[in-house]
Amino acid sequence: MRMYDLIVKKKHGEALTTEEIGYMVKGFTEGEIPDYQMAAMMMAVCFRGMNETETLDLTLAMRDSGEVIDLSAITGVKVDKHSTGGVGDKTSLALAPIMAALGVPVAKMSGRGLGHTGGTIDKLEAFPGFRAELAKDVFVHNVNEIGMAIAAQTTDLAPADKKLYALRDVTGTVDEISLIASSIMSKKLACGADAIVLDVKTGNGAFMKSVEDAKKLARTMVSIGRRAGKHTAAVITDMDQPLGYAVGNSLEVMEAIETLKGNGPKDFKEVVFALGMRMLKAAGKAANDTDALAQMERVIADGSAQKKLAAFVAAQGGDFAPVFNPGLFPKAAMKREVLAPQSGYVHRILAEQIGSACMALGGGRVTKDSAIDLTVGILLQKKNADEVKQGETLAVIYGNEEEKVVAASEIVQSAYEIGVQPIKRRPVIIDYIN
Amino acid sequence: MRMYDLIVKKKHGEALTTEEIGYMVKGFTEGEIPDYQMAAMMMAVCFRGMNETETLDLTLAMRDSGEVIDLSAITGVKVDKHSTGGVGDKTSLALAPIMAALGVPVAKMSGRGLGHTGGTIDKLEAFPGFRAELAKDVFVHNVNEIGMAIAAQTTDLAPADKKLYALRDVTGTVDEISLIASSIMSKKLACGADAIVLDVKTGNGAFMKSVEDAKKLARTMVSIGRRAGKHTAAVITDMDQPLGYAVGNSLEVMEAIETLKGNGPKDFKEVVFALGMRMLKAAGKAANDTDALAQMERVIADGSAQKKLAAFVAAQGGDFAPVFNPGLFPKAAMKREVLAPQSGYVHRILAEQIGSACMALGGGRVTKDSAIDLTVGILLQKKNADEVKQGETLAVIYGNEEEKVVAASEIVQSAYEIGVQPIKRRPVIIDYIN
Repeated sequence: MRMYDLIVKKKHGEALTTEEIGYMVKGFTEGEIPDYQMAAMMMAVCFRGMNETETLDLTLAMRDSGEVIDLSAITGVKVDKHSTGGVGDKTSLALAPIMAALGVPVAKMSGRGLGHTGGTIDKLEAFPGFRAELAKDVFVHNVNEIGMAIAAQTTDLAPADKKLYALRDVTGTVDEISLIASSIMSKKLACGADAIVLDVKTGNGAFMKSVEDAKKLARTMVSIGRRAGKHTAAVITDMDQPLGYAVGNSLEVMEAIETLKGNGPKDFKEVVFALGMRMLKAAGKAANDTDALAQMERVIADGSAQKKLAAFVAAQGGDFAPVFNPGLFPKAAMKREVLAPQSGYVHRILAEQIGSACMALGGGRVTKDSAIDLTVGILLQKKNADEVKQGETLAVIYGNEEEKVVAASEIVQSAYEIGVQPIKRRPVIIDYIN
Repeated sequence: MRMYDLIVKKKHGEALTTEEIGYMVKGFTEGEIPDYQMAAMMMAVCFRGMNETETLDLTLAMRDSGEVIDLSAITGVKVDKHSTGGVGDKTSLALAPIMAALGVPVAKMSGRGLGHTGGTIDKLEAFPGFRAELAKDVFVHNVNEIGMAIAAQTTDLAPADKKLYALRDVTGTVDEISLIASSIMSKKLACGADAIVLDVKTGNGAFMKSVEDAKKLARTMVSIGRRAGKHTAAVITDMDQPLGYAVGNSLEVMEAIETLKGNGPKDFKEVVFALGMRMLKAAGKAANDTDALAQMERVIADGSAQKKLAAFVAAQGGDFAPVFNPGLFPKAAMKREVLAPQSGYVHRILAEQIGSACMALGGGRVTKDSAIDLTVGILLQKKNADEVKQGETLAVIYGNEEEKVVAASEIVQSAYEIGVQPIKRRPVIIDYIN
């Protein structure tokens, strides 16, 4: 078998066999197939696509290029949740404790943030002392004892995907749906859960700008998951503006805590519940949506979800006191209000720009090794379709350096588009892919 | 400027600017743009193509990546001729002396053969002592004195093309017309002639299998040449079977000599004359085709073209005696006839296979450093549409090793397709692109 022939085959629009894809992934990972041949292949795939079988084969070959985590020591149906990433996306922080409180074990590997979207582990580090580096036995023990654990990915999951993504990133070949789907799913499948619920974001702040592309990606990932033998479902959610009001590490944690107390933003709660319904059904814990919703409302109302968060934080070495008294989180030194330059209705909030404003405040990572300021961020006061009067507060900026706060304010102001006509509110739950 | 952005631009079907193409070619040649990015770009070009301006820009950028030969010390209009390559293509050997005899200076850089097509210089080395390595002043002097010189390409013409072609060759991106055209024309333009006549081959033995593709390539090259300020014309010629009867170095030289004596194969002579007409017109030496034909017939009839070949061989250190007595060429030790297995009509002669048979005899180069046997080869006796009786000779194999001769005979036999029905003879001159 020669990589050259596979490139020509794909270029002519033919499907690659399981054996061919396995040869390609192995050869590339081991350095026998050079970058330039794989780059040509990836570009050919951008034009020709891959069918369902090819996409599954690529996913499985990448999954099997490294360790596949064995979670069999954890009791119950392990349901993993994955988000394609967005601004203000603190979903895991509220969803995991709710699931744990309802007996769905959450054994989650998570990453750190890079660029305009934050990472769950960064956010959790807002709890002083919190450690995401867990030995495997501790990880398993915590899930069995508390019902949840969130660990930094330490083992080299799907190294083929890592190498391939790095190449795609510099050759203009990141945006092909089957390649995106196999990249995400290879890592998810390597994480060892029994079921996977996907939050596919769409809108100006998401990788998938159009609803149509988001649906296509969701359908492709659901197909891969099922063909790989995992219960898989997806929810298409809105990222045409940040999720909730808070953007920035400790601000987002506080918002998640408020949600666990029953006071969270409506849109955020809707996303948490939509994903939670799918997770409960996947775990066999709920007969239907009504049942699932009632269960989730119950563990919020009785405080057990909030207590679960505290127990989880404590088990990973963190100070859990802020869970019950968010005023204990360290605070930014200064705040500044962004005012509406005119009266009207919020037509758009460019989510990526809000993420950039948070970066400008020092709250995000420019490179993998950047230190981040957990206290800074933005609290939106107005969201899409809200009416606003000239001079009213659109958002509040929290920061520690005057210059950065001013810069962030300007970015946030320009992220708001205010129009004269009222507009219809776009629903946050756009579709379900089952 | 970033190569990444250029890849994405081309992927989306947009045209690259002159500046962008210049940046890309320079960066790639100097090693600043990595192979993998250029491979992705080349694949995107295979799907999106390049417009006339981009193709010209790429050609000129590659031409200017190395030396552009200055032929101004040669008197007269220098007309270069280029063939896209075929089996039995000894056109230059007859055409150059005819042109020289008619006062059109031929200052030709040529290559050695690789694979199933032979190179002009290899063929010329059938003359004992012939040297293709000429100092530039000797080259110019010989053209001014004799009217022709054929030298091995020593300087690094269009190094960007060389590097790019090597990459395309291993990434399945060799067959895009604008890339083929710019590759050929960058080298031709670097050779410094005033006018260029192109012989674009089509058929089973040519790179362009279909007439349509050959015409497209010819039109693209003619457009590049003209936009680069050179008189350029092309002839589409048949390579659905070998040209002439002889395949193999000294056998082809003998056939060219016979043609200069007026006894050459009809198809070969037609190709030589078709190209010669364009060259004479480009040089301003003939008013029209009739005039050009008459002039060429004259220098054949009066022996001056043959004498020109002898003078040229002598000037480059070769023994010119075989020009007047081809029996003096060293001969292969054995010959073997390939007989028709059935009666009928020759429907097809797979030209590439005939080339491979010559390779199997030791008459071609497997790698750049292979030594070649100049005496071996194949003399076809029957060509397309010829009637043949069972047991009649289809071709004669000339070789020096029994085993190789037997192997070559089998290849030649399988290259012939004999059918029951008579077929129409395909013309050797398929079209003119002016």
